Parts: sequence; C-alpha cells; structure tokens
Amino acid sequence: MGSARHGHAGICRGCWDQMHVPIPIRGPLSLPFRAFGITRSKMNPNICTICERSFRYVKKQRHVTVPATILFADIRGVTALSERIDAIRLSAIVSLFQDRCAQAIWTHDGIVNKQMGDGLMAIFNFPITATDHAGAAINAALDLQRLCAAAFEDLRSSLDGLPAHTLGVGVGIHTGDVEIGEFSSFRSDFTAIGGAVNLAARLESQAAAGEILVSAETAARSPAWTAGAGERLLALKGLDQPVRARVLARRT
Amino acid sequence: MGSARHGHAGICRGCWDQMHVPIPIRGPLSLPFRAFGITRSKMNPNICTICERSFRYVKKQRHVTVPATILFADIRGVTALSERIDAIRLSAIVSLFQDRCAQAIWTHDGIVNKQMGDGLMAIFNFPITATDHAGAAINAALDLQRLCAAAFEDLRSSLDGLPAHTLGVGVGIHTGDVEIGEFSSFRSDFTAIGGAVNLAARLESQAAAGEILVSAETAARSPAWTAGAGERLLALKGLDQPVRARVLARRT
Repeated sequence: MGSARHGHAGICRGCWDQMHVPIPIRGPLSLPFRAFGITRSKMNPNICTICERSFRYVKKQRHVTVPATILFADIRGVTALSERIDAIRLSAIVSLFQDRCAQAIWTHDGIVNKQMGDGLMAIFNFPITATDHAGAAINAALDLQRLCAAAFEDLRSSLDGLPAHTLGVGVGIHTGDVEIGEFSSFRSDFTAIGGAVNLAARLESQAAAGEILVSAETAARSPAWTAGAGERLLALKGLDQPVRARVLARRT
Repeated sequence: MGSARHGHAGICRGCWDQMHVPIPIRGPLSLPFRAFGITRSKMNPNICTICERSFRYVKKQRHVTVPATILFADIRGVTALSERIDAIRLSAIVSLFQDRCAQAIWTHDGIVNKQMGDGLMAIFNFPITATDHAGAAINAALDLQRLCAAAFEDLRSSLDGLPAHTLGVGVGIHTGDVEIGEFSSFRSDFTAIGGAVNLAARLESQAAAGEILVSAETAARSPAWTAGAGERLLALKGLDQPVRARVLARRT
C-alpha cells in the first residue's frame, strides 16, 4: 500500500478493490457516469455510489463476512449540554464534529457508514481494503480527537457561553469479523452488523471526553500504536465477561 | 386528519405539508419527475427525495426547531446473541426487524430517519405533519412490537437453534422540540438533534424486550394510550434528575 493509494483517486477505490473494475469518479472520464447518477459516495469521496448503493451487484450476495475495524465516535455530554445551550450552538457543534471526523476517517481510508446526530460509525477495510485496518482506525481516531478539539476551541472563542470543558469526543474501536450487506428491503445502502460492531459501540459508550478505547483485539494488531497505553477492565452491557481495553488519550 | 390522509398518497405528503407544493410520486404524472431522480423516499414511501435530500430548499434554512415525537427501537440482547448464532440467522433477524418496524412507522405517518444495524430512529410530525404525533408514535410502537414478535416467532420455527425467549425489541419515545436539518456538509439527508432526541435514545436503552418506555411529556399528550400503564423512575446517563416514564407492554 504505497502513497499513491492515498489522496484523491481518479477511479473508485471501492469498486477497484472489490471487483477490479475501474469506475472513473474524477476528471472528464467521470462525466458520462455522472449522467447515470454514478457519483462520489457520501461515505467517502474516493468511492462511488455503486459501492454505496449496489452492494448485491458488487458482492453478488446479500451479505458477506469481512474482517474489519469498526470505529464509533460521539460527542460526550450532549444530553446534559443540550439542556443549557441553544439550538444554533448545538447545531454548530454537531456540524463541526461530523465534518472533522469525516476528514480524519477519509484520510485513513475508512468510510463514514452511519451518522446518528451527535455520533457516527466508521468502517475500515471495506470497501477500500487495507492490510493494517486496525492501525488506520487508531490513527483516524487520534486525528479526529485533535481536529475536533481544535474546532471546539475555535468555536468557543466565537460563541459566548459555550462550556468548553464539557465538550469532547469519545471513541471506541474494535476489530473482528462483521457482516456487511443490506439488512432492510427498503434501503439500498450497506451497513455492518454483528457482535464486533456492538462491542465497538459499547466501548465508545464508556469512553470519556478525549478518550479512545481500543479493544484488546485491535491493540494486538497495532502494537506500535498502543504500546505504553493504559489498560482498563470494563463491564459492558450484554457481555458476561469483563472486557480489557487500552485507553489512548488525545494527542495535543 | 381524515382517513384520506392514510394509505398510498398520489402526491408527496411531506412537500405538501411543508410547502403546499404538489409533487406527484405515484401514477403517470410522476414519470417526468422520476426522470429527474425525484422518487419516493426510503424514509417513508409517501414522501419524496426532495423532502429527504433538499432540506434547505424545502425550509429555506439550514435547520428549524420543530415539536416532534422521536421513537428509538432496537433488538434487545443482540450483543449477547451475536456470540451464539451465525451470521445468516443474525442477518435474517435484523432484516425482519427493520422491515416490520418500517411498516408500523409508515402506517402512522412517521419516517424511518436512521437505521443503525439492529436499531432505528423514527420521527413523527416531520415532514408529514400530525396533530397527535405522540399518539401516532405510541401506536406505531405497539404495532411494531406486535409485528416483530410475530416475525421472530415465525423465524424460530424455520431456523433451528434460535433462542426465542431472548429475542425482543425495546422502544423509547419522547416528545419535545428538536432541531431538524442538515448537520454535515457532506451528507444531504436531514436528521433531528437535541436534548429531546437524546432522551428518547436513553429511554430506549433502558427498555427490556417487549417494552415501550414513554416519557411523561409524551404520555401527557396521549392520556388515552397510556392510562393505566405502569410507571418507572429511571436514572439516565447525562441527566441529574431521575426521569419518570410510563411502561407499555406489547399487545398480544
């Protein structure tokens, strides 16, 4: 995976990695495709709407089992915060969060699969494949923490009355086999389900502002990024056994 | 709101309720619109892709404050379940859940705004307006509990080894002012954010399989549907004060 893989791709990297089919998404060659509604995906600007909406065409199956790293992120303390600040401030915070997170996730070849108000779910290793998807997700998390912290700080200087100390992002990351496909007859965008997805979500729910909770499975695949990180034993809802996680703090 | 409001609408009910503009979505008049990509929305087949993706065109603002009822639903125990069953069973369960919930929500004029794996978020009173959006959401919840229970029971007879007693849906419902709009520069579908949305999500996280937790605000607007229902005092994450909720059980 050389540096040529990064930056703006001329062809859809998802269709290339999954089918070895070159779909132009930038430049003059992309114009006829655009006429048929094939454009860059909202999940990642280096993949196209074929990957996004035609999972069954791309994979020839309704769903597939794929090793992947799942990242959940959300703004901590929004429930408490939304009682104290007005709608304009809240929407500014959520917009900054979504945009900065996407920037960090795309830089490391992940996709923003779901946005849920003040939270999101990202997938690494599908449809853009990556040997070190665990490391990519950890780096995306470190970047998004840094970008969001800077954006929230700027926002605090421009909007009075924003309690900056309560504003921060929590992240949970886990690596494992997930089911990717279409799981609803009326929507055509794919998503990931399975125990590994739920574990990533549960880890995120336990992360404090500025924290990244990385599961032992993800950490084992990325020792360089988690060496020296603190460890925490977590009792997670739905799981009998406590889960061991590494705690990474925001790079400043 | 007469019976003519229900069933399959010939024009987009969202564009009509929000702008009083008739956009054909069924029948021969809809054909020229379809040529321009204006089709029925995935959020609700009685609204169109203009409401879904062109919020700023419809409302002439980036976001608006709207009184609405928010419903969250998810499959209880999936984290534990996904450790015990295979991918085919899990995907069948999730697909049934998503489809049955959508059916119930659409019947009561709500929209499936977000699907998140084994969960979803629905909005009542936008873009299709409803005087009794609290009652509509409660009825949708009762219907979806009934439809999912029947679907899971059918699935259990056809797939061996499915532990039916652990399969059930939890629902949380809250009514209040929410911010509706686009909160990301790279996605064009609208969503709802704010304290009222988070409270509905928190209620759902406390609902056991088969339960519907209805906030006091929603219950006060729909006394006919919540009369005689049990009450529960809940300590919810991010909120200093405990929250009083009504507990409705599945109609059998």
